[in-house]
Amino acid sequence: MVIERKDMKAEVRERLRGGEGNTEILHLVNCEKEKNIRMLAEMTLQPGCSIGTHNHDSETEYYIILSGSGIINDNGADAPVKTGDVVITGGGSSHSLCNTGDVPLVLHAVIVTY
Amino acid sequence: MVIERKDMKAEVRERLRGGEGNTEILHLVNCEKEKNIRMLAEMTLQPGCSIGTHNHDSETEYYIILSGSGIINDNGADAPVKTGDVVITGGGSSHSLCNTGDVPLVLHAVIVTY
Repeated sequence: MVIERKDMKAEVRERLRGGEGNTEILHLVNCEKEKNIRMLAEMTLQPGCSIGTHNHDSETEYYIILSGSGIINDNGADAPVKTGDVVITGGGSSHSLCNTGDVPLVLHAVIVTY
Repeated sequence: MVIERKDMKAEVRERLRGGEGNTEILHLVNCEKEKNIRMLAEMTLQPGCSIGTHNHDSETEYYIILSGSGIINDNGADAPVKTGDVVITGGGSSHSLCNTGDVPLVLHAVIVTY
């Protein structure tokens, strides 16, 4: 099945997970119809916006940074992220992500459940 | 865990699944260490290159087209794909993909198992 971008569901979440500003989410797939995947989305954080700290239990989230840069808090430790990096968070670990740059931070978010 | 692009495993597969030319694969994650995910990769097909027809049993593959265009054979039917499109193939369905354009066709491939 081919899904065109114009047919994907877009939403804007305010202060996602207690973060700052908005998280723009384009749902690439309706995961309610899929198995072992809870999210497959493109997310955009404008400069200064963030996703707050949250855990991933019984699932793993993969962030694939498509453009921009920021700071990830990876289970308690801050680390820079930039275009091309991947962040893996699962098995009860936590993360948060802030766009500390001056251009949009765009990423693919994939959450695989187990 | 943050993985930088320079530390990801790259490989070139010739005539992947019986297709034409090469498929350049950058493994974003070592999926041997992960659960319910068999591939998370960036794939590049140069013009004229293709991935041959193959099935996905007990798993679903998601192609997220990052740039370029081509033709997907989606379980027997040809359809055009372009930047921003997503292709879902699972539950025993088959697909093949050919870069019929004149620029590289780049995509993220995600295979979720079940």
